[in-house]
Amino acid sequence: MSAAGLADARRVLARCDELAAVTADPPRLTRLSLTPEHARANALAGRWLAEAGLSTWIDAAGSRCGRLEGVRPGLPAVLLGSHLDTVPDAGRYDGILGVVVAIEVVRRLAASGRPLPFAVEVAAFGDEEGTRFGAALLGSRALAGTWDETWWELCDGDGVTLAAAFEAFGLDPARIATAARAPGDLVAYLEAHIEQGPSLEAAGRALGVVGSIAGALRIAVTATGRAGHAGGTAYEHRRDALVAASEVVVAAERLARETGGIATVGRLSVWPGAVNVIPGRVAFSLDLRAAADAVRDRLWSAIEACMAEVGERRGVTFATTLLHAAPAVHCSDRLRAAVAAGIRGTGDAEPMVLFSGAGHDAMALAAVTEVAMLFIRCHDGISHQPAESVRLEDVAAAVDALEAAVLALA
Amino acid sequence: MSAAGLADARRVLARCDELAAVTADPPRLTRLSLTPEHARANALAGRWLAEAGLSTWIDAAGSRCGRLEGVRPGLPAVLLGSHLDTVPDAGRYDGILGVVVAIEVVRRLAASGRPLPFAVEVAAFGDEEGTRFGAALLGSRALAGTWDETWWELCDGDGVTLAAAFEAFGLDPARIATAARAPGDLVAYLEAHIEQGPSLEAAGRALGVVGSIAGALRIAVTATGRAGHAGGTAYEHRRDALVAASEVVVAAERLARETGGIATVGRLSVWPGAVNVIPGRVAFSLDLRAAADAVRDRLWSAIEACMAEVGERRGVTFATTLLHAAPAVHCSDRLRAAVAAGIRGTGDAEPMVLFSGAGHDAMALAAVTEVAMLFIRCHDGISHQPAESVRLEDVAAAVDALEAAVLALA
Repeated sequence: MSAAGLADARRVLARCDELAAVTADPPRLTRLSLTPEHARANALAGRWLAEAGLSTWIDAAGSRCGRLEGVRPGLPAVLLGSHLDTVPDAGRYDGILGVVVAIEVVRRLAASGRPLPFAVEVAAFGDEEGTRFGAALLGSRALAGTWDETWWELCDGDGVTLAAAFEAFGLDPARIATAARAPGDLVAYLEAHIEQGPSLEAAGRALGVVGSIAGALRIAVTATGRAGHAGGTAYEHRRDALVAASEVVVAAERLARETGGIATVGRLSVWPGAVNVIPGRVAFSLDLRAAADAVRDRLWSAIEACMAEVGERRGVTFATTLLHAAPAVHCSDRLRAAVAAGIRGTGDAEPMVLFSGAGHDAMALAAVTEVAMLFIRCHDGISHQPAESVRLEDVAAAVDALEAAVLALA
Repeated sequence: MSAAGLADARRVLARCDELAAVTADPPRLTRLSLTPEHARANALAGRWLAEAGLSTWIDAAGSRCGRLEGVRPGLPAVLLGSHLDTVPDAGRYDGILGVVVAIEVVRRLAASGRPLPFAVEVAAFGDEEGTRFGAALLGSRALAGTWDETWWELCDGDGVTLAAAFEAFGLDPARIATAARAPGDLVAYLEAHIEQGPSLEAAGRALGVVGSIAGALRIAVTATGRAGHAGGTAYEHRRDALVAASEVVVAAERLARETGGIATVGRLSVWPGAVNVIPGRVAFSLDLRAAADAVRDRLWSAIEACMAEVGERRGVTFATTLLHAAPAVHCSDRLRAAVAAGIRGTGDAEPMVLFSGAGHDAMALAAVTEVAMLFIRCHDGISHQPAESVRLEDVAAAVDALEAAVLALA
C-alpha cells in the first residue's frame, strides 16, 4: 500500500465524516431526499467534484453529477456512482463511501493528464433507500429513464407529496424526463459499496466483485379492524388490527425461512394509538428478497395467503399496495472482468464473487447500460446502523481497484 | 318521560355536541389534557356551572370544579364527576356525558331552591384516559390526594414532560397538593358514565348500577434487538425487535383468554422505522384487566414469562416499566342503594348490577370517599371510537336517576 494511496483513503474517510455531520437528527445521521440536508450534501459533493476538475450540475431528479471529458468532448461515458441519502439513524458508509471513492478516482484520472477514450461521469443519487416516500432508487431510476409517473402522489410521513417535495427543493416535476440518459450516452456503470454482509470479512478479503443483485419487492400493507375500548370490549367482539398484523409479522419470518427468501417488516404504525384503545388500523411495510425472483414471488404468495386466513378469522381486512418491484440483476461479464482485474491489481489473485442481498442503484442503471459493482469489506456485516465501519487499507485498495477497472475498460 | 325531562336531555346532548367540536384533530375528536382544547372545554364547563348558579374554580391539576352550598356554607359535599379528556379519534360521550349530566343535576338542585344537608360539587377531570402521558386518572388522583411525584418526568409523544405541560397550561406543579380533598370534605362520589359494553342493551335496560370496577395494570415495554440491513443480514444474525414484540402481542391475547383476563396492546412504535432496516427497538403498551386483581396479576406473570422466553431465543431484551396499577374497586353498599333507588324512580323496578371492565375516575376517588356509578346504555357496546351513541330517553332517565340518588342521600 503506497503512502499516497493511504493519504487518498484518509481524504475519502474524512469526507465521509464530513457528510455524516450533515443530518436532520444530530447526533444521529438521518439524511432523507429533497431535504435541506440533501442540498448541503449535494453542495459538498459538488465542491469536491469541481476541485477534481469536473464540470458539475444537479439533474432534474436532484442528483449531483459531474463529468470529465475524454480525448474529445461529447464521448459516451463510464458512469461511477452511488447515493448520498441514508436510512434513519444510519451509518456513514452505505452509499456515501461509493460516491466519495468515485470522486477520488475521477480526481486521479483528471490529475493524470491522460484523457481516456470515453468520458467519465460521477452521479451522487439523492434517493436510493426510499426512506422518505417508500419507493426506492428514485435518483437512479430517473437517470435510467424508468421514472414511474404514479410516484408523484406518494406522501412522506408529514403528508408531503413527492411532487411538492421536488418543488420545495427547487426542481420542476415536469422536467423529470430530462434526467434520463440514452443508452448511447453511457458505456458502463460501476458502483463501489460496502458489502453489508459478513462474507468478505469471514474470507479475509478486502474487496469482492458482485455477480448479481437480489430483486426486492416492497409492499405497503394496511390492516383494518375496529377500534374499541380496551376494558369494555370482550374478545368475541374484538377486531384487533394489531394482533392480526402481529400474526402476519411472525408468519412472514417463518415463511421466508421455509422458502429461502428474506422478509422484513421495518415500519409499523398503529391507530388510534392509545394505551386503552384496541387498534382499529395498522399500516406496515414488507420488504421481500431472494436470490431468484421466483423464490421471492413464491414467498409473497405465501404471505398473501396468510393474510387472507388471518383476516377471515379475525374480521380484519388486509389491503396491499406494491411500492417497488425490482427484478434480480446480473452484472455484465465484461464489467465483472474489469472489476476483477482492478481487484487483482491490489494483490488479491482470485477475487471473490458475491451475491448482493441488498438493492443498489446499479439495479436501476441496468435498464440503460451494463453494470458491475465492487464490494468493500465492512466490520461484522453491520449496515443501516451507526456501527457501520470500514478499514483505511480497504478503502485505499477500493480506490486503486476502481481506478484500475476504469482504465481496464479504456 | 316528562317533556321537561326530555328538554333537559336535549340540552345535555347539545352540550356533548358542543364539546365534540373542541378538538385538536377535526373532524375527529381528540382532546388531550393540558392542551388548548382542554382549556376551551374547561371554559365551556365553567360557563355552564356558573349559569347553573355554582361557584367555580380550576384546581391545581387543571380540573374544572363547581360547588353548590347546602343548608349552610362549608358543609361536606357529595361530589359528582367524570372527565373531559378523550382518547384519539374518540366518541363524544365517554366521560363527557357524565360531566354534562352532573351539571344538569346540579342545575336542577340549585333551581329547586331547597338546600340539601350537604354541599354538592361537580368535578370535570382533565386527564382520565392517560392518553398523553401514559399514566391515567391524573385529575382524580390529584383530587383524591394520591398524586405520584414520579409522574412529573413522564413525557408525551413530543418529549414534553408533565411538569412542563402543567406550566404551559398556567398551573404550578409545586401546588399540586392543594388539589387534594380531605376525607372530611366529601360524603360521597357519584359518577354517571356510558356502559362501554353491550350488557344493558342486551337486557333492554336504560340504566344500571355498578358493583365493582376492574383494576388495570398499564405497562410500558421496550424490546431492544439490533438494527441492520434488511437485505444483507441473514436470519442467523438477526435480532429483530419487531418479530420478537409481535410474538408477545399474539401470546398476550392467547394468555388473556386462557386466564380469563383482558390484554390490549394499543400503542406500538418501531425504530428506526424504515422499509429496508431490521427494527432495532420497539416500544409498546400493555393494558391488563380482570374482574379480580389476582387473575390480572397471574396474566401479567404469564406475559413476563413469555417475554423472557422470546427474548432469550431471539437475542432481544425486554424492559418493562409499570405506569399505572389500580386495584379493583368495590362500590359502597350505601351509595349503590342510593343509585338503585334513583334508577327505580325511572320505572326500572329491579336495576341491573354491572361489572365495569373499564377504569373510571371513581377508582381514584375510592381512596378518599365512598363511590358508586350509574351506567347508561350505549349502542352495541361501542366506545373509544366515533360511533359511540346514546338515546335521548336514556339520557333523560340518567339525569332523573342521578338527581334522585343525590336526594336519596339527603
